[in-house]
Amino acid sequence: MADAKNLNIAYIGGGSMNFGWKLIGELAGEEQLGGTVRLYDTDKQAALANEVIGNKLRENPAAKGGFIYLAADTLEEALKNADFVIISITPGTLEEIVSDIHIPEMFGIYQPVGDSAGPGGIVRAVRTLPVYIKIAEEIKKLCPDAWVINLTHPMSVCLGVLYKVFPQIKAFGSSSEPFSAQELLAELAAKEFGVSAVCKKEIKTNLIGINNFSWVNEANYQGNSLMDVFRKYAEICARTGYEKRAGEFKTNPYASANMIRFDLFLRYGLIPAQSDRYSAEFCPPWYLKNPKVVSTWKFGLMSVNYLRRRKSERLQRSKRLMSGEEQLRIGPSGSDCVLQIKALLGLGNLISNADLPNSGQVCNLPAGAIVQTNALFSHNSIKPVAAGTLPDEIYALAIRHVINQQTVIKSVFEKDLDIAFNAFLNDPLVTIDLASATELYKEMLSSIRAHLIYYC
Amino acid sequence: MADAKNLNIAYIGGGSMNFGWKLIGELAGEEQLGGTVRLYDTDKQAALANEVIGNKLRENPAAKGGFIYLAADTLEEALKNADFVIISITPGTLEEIVSDIHIPEMFGIYQPVGDSAGPGGIVRAVRTLPVYIKIAEEIKKLCPDAWVINLTHPMSVCLGVLYKVFPQIKAFGSSSEPFSAQELLAELAAKEFGVSAVCKKEIKTNLIGINNFSWVNEANYQGNSLMDVFRKYAEICARTGYEKRAGEFKTNPYASANMIRFDLFLRYGLIPAQSDRYSAEFCPPWYLKNPKVVSTWKFGLMSVNYLRRRKSERLQRSKRLMSGEEQLRIGPSGSDCVLQIKALLGLGNLISNADLPNSGQVCNLPAGAIVQTNALFSHNSIKPVAAGTLPDEIYALAIRHVINQQTVIKSVFEKDLDIAFNAFLNDPLVTIDLASATELYKEMLSSIRAHLIYYC
Amino acid sequence: MADAKNLNIAYIGGGSMNFGWKLIGELAGEEQLGGTVRLYDTDKQAALANEVIGNKLRENPAAKGGFIYLAADTLEEALKNADFVIISITPGTLEEIVSDIHIPEMFGIYQPVGDSAGPGGIVRAVRTLPVYIKIAEEIKKLCPDAWVINLTHPMSVCLGVLYKVFPQIKAFGSSSEPFSAQELLAELAAKEFGVSAVCKKEIKTNLIGINNFSWVNEANYQGNSLMDVFRKYAEICARTGYEKRAGEFKTNPYASANMIRFDLFLRYGLIPAQSDRYSAEFCPPWYLKNPKVVSTWKFGLMSVNYLRRRKSERLQRSKRLMSGEEQLRIGPSGSDCVLQIKALLGLGNLISNADLPNSGQVCNLPAGAIVQTNALFSHNSIKPVAAGTLPDEIYALAIRHVINQQTVIKSVFEKDLDIAFNAFLNDPLVTIDLASATELYKEMLSSIRAHLIYYC
Amino acid sequence: MADAKNLNIAYIGGGSMNFGWKLIGELAGEEQLGGTVRLYDTDKQAALANEVIGNKLRENPAAKGGFIYLAADTLEEALKNADFVIISITPGTLEEIVSDIHIPEMFGIYQPVGDSAGPGGIVRAVRTLPVYIKIAEEIKKLCPDAWVINLTHPMSVCLGVLYKVFPQIKAFGSSSEPFSAQELLAELAAKEFGVSAVCKKEIKTNLIGINNFSWVNEANYQGNSLMDVFRKYAEICARTGYEKRAGEFKTNPYASANMIRFDLFLRYGLIPAQSDRYSAEFCPPWYLKNPKVVSTWKFGLMSVNYLRRRKSERLQRSKRLMSGEEQLRIGPSGSDCVLQIKALLGLGNLISNADLPNSGQVCNLPAGAIVQTNALFSHNSIKPVAAGTLPDEIYALAIRHVINQQTVIKSVFEKDLDIAFNAFLNDPLVTIDLASATELYKEMLSSIRAHLIYYC
Repeated sequence: MADAKNLNIAYIGGGSMNFGWKLIGELAGEEQLGGTVRLYDTDKQAALANEVIGNKLRENPAAKGGFIYLAADTLEEALKNADFVIISITPGTLEEIVSDIHIPEMFGIYQPVGDSAGPGGIVRAVRTLPVYIKIAEEIKKLCPDAWVINLTHPMSVCLGVLYKVFPQIKAFGSSSEPFSAQELLAELAAKEFGVSAVCKKEIKTNLIGINNFSWVNEANYQGNSLMDVFRKYAEICARTGYEKRAGEFKTNPYASANMIRFDLFLRYGLIPAQSDRYSAEFCPPWYLKNPKVVSTWKFGLMSVNYLRRRKSERLQRSKRLMSGEEQLRIGPSGSDCVLQIKALLGLGNLISNADLPNSGQVCNLPAGAIVQTNALFSHNSIKPVAAGTLPDEIYALAIRHVINQQTVIKSVFEKDLDIAFNAFLNDPLVTIDLASATELYKEMLSSIRAHLIYYC
Repeated sequence: MADAKNLNIAYIGGGSMNFGWKLIGELAGEEQLGGTVRLYDTDKQAALANEVIGNKLRENPAAKGGFIYLAADTLEEALKNADFVIISITPGTLEEIVSDIHIPEMFGIYQPVGDSAGPGGIVRAVRTLPVYIKIAEEIKKLCPDAWVINLTHPMSVCLGVLYKVFPQIKAFGSSSEPFSAQELLAELAAKEFGVSAVCKKEIKTNLIGINNFSWVNEANYQGNSLMDVFRKYAEICARTGYEKRAGEFKTNPYASANMIRFDLFLRYGLIPAQSDRYSAEFCPPWYLKNPKVVSTWKFGLMSVNYLRRRKSERLQRSKRLMSGEEQLRIGPSGSDCVLQIKALLGLGNLISNADLPNSGQVCNLPAGAIVQTNALFSHNSIKPVAAGTLPDEIYALAIRHVINQQTVIKSVFEKDLDIAFNAFLNDPLVTIDLASATELYKEMLSSIRAHLIYYC
Repeated sequence: MADAKNLNIAYIGGGSMNFGWKLIGELAGEEQLGGTVRLYDTDKQAALANEVIGNKLRENPAAKGGFIYLAADTLEEALKNADFVIISITPGTLEEIVSDIHIPEMFGIYQPVGDSAGPGGIVRAVRTLPVYIKIAEEIKKLCPDAWVINLTHPMSVCLGVLYKVFPQIKAFGSSSEPFSAQELLAELAAKEFGVSAVCKKEIKTNLIGINNFSWVNEANYQGNSLMDVFRKYAEICARTGYEKRAGEFKTNPYASANMIRFDLFLRYGLIPAQSDRYSAEFCPPWYLKNPKVVSTWKFGLMSVNYLRRRKSERLQRSKRLMSGEEQLRIGPSGSDCVLQIKALLGLGNLISNADLPNSGQVCNLPAGAIVQTNALFSHNSIKPVAAGTLPDEIYALAIRHVINQQTVIKSVFEKDLDIAFNAFLNDPLVTIDLASATELYKEMLSSIRAHLIYYC
Repeated sequence: MADAKNLNIAYIGGGSMNFGWKLIGELAGEEQLGGTVRLYDTDKQAALANEVIGNKLRENPAAKGGFIYLAADTLEEALKNADFVIISITPGTLEEIVSDIHIPEMFGIYQPVGDSAGPGGIVRAVRTLPVYIKIAEEIKKLCPDAWVINLTHPMSVCLGVLYKVFPQIKAFGSSSEPFSAQELLAELAAKEFGVSAVCKKEIKTNLIGINNFSWVNEANYQGNSLMDVFRKYAEICARTGYEKRAGEFKTNPYASANMIRFDLFLRYGLIPAQSDRYSAEFCPPWYLKNPKVVSTWKFGLMSVNYLRRRKSERLQRSKRLMSGEEQLRIGPSGSDCVLQIKALLGLGNLISNADLPNSGQVCNLPAGAIVQTNALFSHNSIKPVAAGTLPDEIYALAIRHVINQQTVIKSVFEKDLDIAFNAFLNDPLVTIDLASATELYKEMLSSIRAHLIYYC
């Protein structure tokens, strides 16, 4: 097994100005780890920038971790002999992401994220999955024993492709969305038990579902079940939202008042693990019919201006980080990714969520489908926890996506975009007539034309 | 077992001016059968009318069957010692049926039938199922060995309730919709094989699915597979519809150009068994987004004027039939119901479709769910044919309805209309936002207020 | 589809002096059928003899069927363009069959048949299945649309191999064993209903299980259930056996007093479909511990003398048939094979038993396992009847064999006789210690050495 | 939740001179725990003895745990308000246990333990399960929120009864048998990696199966898989046994040379988790045909003399412990029971084995069957790890026992000993004829006559 102080980490998408910086900052704080991080990105400049930023941070006296950062010229160079592979790519340009969202809006379909489900999620899959075929083939060749951590959306189909190309791959999905439920539960537990503050890590939840449409069916704080506590607050806050966050959502597309979380819980009895914008994206247009409906549910749609502004801010920050004008924060990033790496290296067991092929952890989803549950991370081993059975009504919502995901994956391996259209049509947000759906699909594909060469 | 010449048949809904007359006419043509038909109807006058009509037809020299018709005062009187129970009721007044269709239209939801799925189907279930609990209890008490033939919609939930109250009941659903596929195939076979005419009974199909959303996965004419023949015509007719019927649909809400049948076949590879209007009703609003979309698919929405006109015509015909001014046609009715009765009496085996609890005939639907496949009818026995497995994409469409049906049944046994709302929300035609859906449900319930006493 | 009057039938094992003669005799009585039967046999002389016998019978004025018989030189010649393929081979010499039975006896393992389960059944599979790989490959090449009727034992693994090599093959197993239950039920029904005689065809049974370990879970005579009737007689006859046959078993190894049928029924509630000697062979040594135990259950072990005498008698009869000194009986043979052919040609529907890959007809056996149920035979189509679910305790007995069969098939495709030993060890009759079992297996293999070249 | 320093522990079978003393000794070493242990035993004297022994140990200066021991007069008194219930009873007298073993020997059936499977295991279940119905009813009434830890054999059926009477019970089985595989793997790992010693806790195994017939399908030491290491030693030691223990087995019935572990591994690819004597007991008589066969496999049969001697030694030791002449060892006992209690109290997560109703942790065993896998123990929560799928051939061996266990449980609830006989007959060690099996069962029941009043 890998030597924790002398690791080879391949970071695909290593020019990232978001998770990339978090990872660099968190690794810098880890005394027990060290080695080399090879940054590969189709935007070589971005990878080079992070090479500079990462290496500069190492010189910071507060940095305990000893990682060297190297921008890799090729995927192969990054993967060769890797112990861990982190994949966190943004497939497509900002303009393409904008089109994922805005073309559907012209057909009356509104999406708060557009990266997992909905027309945006499916078209994003269409352009991303060919890249994943390539990545899986190279991993099989260059580092078949590496642990592969995926953070890219759409999560389930990216993992599905990795496992289809290379069934022995040791890949899993690492997601931060479920922490949003733990955070809310921590606040409610603090109120309920009269404690000044409860840390989200103190909230033990059992997760069951699929990525970004996952559910909490047990929640404990110090051995006390929180399900009835949650019900109490859900009933109180159903119409107003959870006050503490009820304001933010207007300016921050990531914020919400948890009204959808409360609504789904009161209807189905389980707590949605992810934030409202993702829960909304996987349901019929109950919460998304039009922008007015969205605002009554106190969450926000993805905003192009926001994306553009954020990108430009990040580019400026990148310059400051490279020049040393600003430094990355050293320490925990909010993701479990580094903790998962440590557990896999034998540095202590960890219970965290993981997206993995179903081997029984979700009793009533198909074997092999990528599901999300808790898992036990230990030395060179991940074992999912048997999470139980999805209630019938949630199953009915989830199985559509599971089958759609299988359809999308099939379309990639058969290089047939008509197959992916079947998934597109079956997406719960596609509530338009067949002729319009056909037109929408064509327009969306046409805006990502450059990526479709694979299918010809 | 029952004596074929001395049968006791209970007909629940026996005042019917549609199937009632067909049954009377067909029984009159059956030499091998005889006995008593007890007609029970909440509209006693209608039952009495059919008593007169049925008994008058017996006097017709062309009539070979020897059935006496008696209007029963109570359900109990009709069921006592019955050998066969036929249930064909129309739950609710014409005005209530109109509201099943027209209130959703005000919310932008269009339904071509509204009796099986869609908001109309679910609300119809809400008012019908309490009646079925009562019927099942009485059958258990008064004629537990009787064969029970259901023709009422929504079929699957009506049968589901019968089996839940009395698991040993010998009940099945008898449906004529699958004949529409056989008829079309017979016409295509005649063309293909250069025969002047092929009878629909010569077309052997294997059925798999649920009532009114059932699929043909094998079709033969004289041992020759028709699947490729169907593909040929589907490709030719996909955009224009099957010419022979393409005109009718504007005036006859039961007609269509089979465009949806072709479209679904080309997408999924199986032939929808039922007519287009039913296939449309079980899908997302691909074909039903608005009346204009409907007309491009060359089928029709349910029309209130049509229903009103038809009812008035039937009342007038009833008078003529009672007075003897007109006589019912003696002979086959187009339903397999009488043939099924004969086979169960040991008068020859029959392969026909049957809605029955799943005991493996549809591999990937849940055990116990009411499914539709072929079955072998023989002396006092019905055995479903193992029909195979629904393809994943069709499964995804069908399982939503199966789960919705279970939810609706649950709401009846728990007397909780909020549970049925979960099914309502999950119906593929309900593509409105949650607040609007809530309002729609409330309005629809309010228009059938009289039936809701059961739930209080 | 094939022309009934001009059929090409390939008969693999066509030198048969048992089923071969039955088939020739039955075909001779069939007015509606005609064509050519190509007889292929590794014993060419035997095939030539049947060519003579078959062609001679055609000249009999009582013969209505018009079949020409031709001995084929090669498998290929027989299969080319066949419409139907009948496979009924006896793999191995008489001495090898004798060793299947007698070597185990030296280890205290007694078998009444030794062709389906038990050490004999497994070793017989080891030598037979390589032949089936070859047959399947040739059918795929030379007559992929032919219907393939297997009569060879061990049935389930022979069919399993055909389907594994050529998944689109239209093969099924045709078995007469289940008629033994119908015959007994017919006698009991005659007694019970005071009728002079009931024909076994009037007894309608529903079958569920695997070949030679199949069960009747419903039985009807004229619409009346016979299950309680059977219970009554089972209770009366449990200790004495069914008197009418209680004597025969001492001289006729095919006879029995049905004591095992009664015993298993009283324990598990279903009626074994096959004769006692087969039921015994699939169970632990409850009825087979030693010859004395066997005789208390009033059935017989396979006898070598009997086999030798029968063979010699048949050879003599063959000569008489060739010379014309004796003639085959024209008419029904007791097998459903010809009736099945007629139904597949569109000459009337038939319900008969069929061994087929499980597609839901036995709910709780694995998909794809070869199971035995009723099936509907119609024009170019066989559809199994959904037979239900095996009760848990019978399931526990049956699943051992199903898994053993899969293990044996695996050993053939991996050419690894150690894998087949795992099945051997797990057979319920192998109740000896591991070292002895290893020795027994080696000795049995050594006596069929000539067939093992395939595995090298 | 319970207060760790002020616990109420009910110990059913609290007069135990085996696990009882281990528990007292281990609790005495636990600083973090304290409270009251109520000892209930049908042998009140034994409970009183342990009350004295437990309270005396508290006075030992080395004892950190603060538990008070009280002998309870009734089951109710012990259970009232319990936080934890430990059930470790020995159902029946020594003479009855002797008869479990020795009567079958007269029929040629040899058992190394006789407490889980085999004729002994089934008859032991027959006399034990009525007691478990009573225990479950009282727990439901008196301490429904308590965690219930079962150590009694036959484990699976004892737990099955608890869950059937009270489905919400928080019960699990705690077993030490799987440690035997970890110990052996630890020794092999030490050799392989050239380390002086490896602690068994450093060996991480994934468990799958049922109690005492459970399998290791993954084993790691410091992140390195041990499966190939095990294969190497299995091949070397297959015929001789693992030398280090090869001598002991002649005098110690708990010892073995691991030859069965190696043999089963080489045949099926998974490592038996339990010691050889248990593995043997769940298989056909491969290793148990007669005492000579047993000795070639280098393990021992249960010995009556051994049991008698051990009992008399323990009685003497009890006196010495009561008088203070001897003291119990303070510290870990070899069972995970106290560690499990601590984890459930929130004092640190624990991965340990647990027998629990199947909710997907073993993919191909029936839902609800009691299975053994790893589980994550945390604050007031146990979540089983998704262990995967049993290989087909192991499944075939295991499912017999699973179904037998369900049959035995059914016989208790229906108070019908004929039903249990079906399980008895189906046990793999019962390889005698039906009449002998019937006689054996009767004799065994007759020797436990006193316990059968429940079934009358």
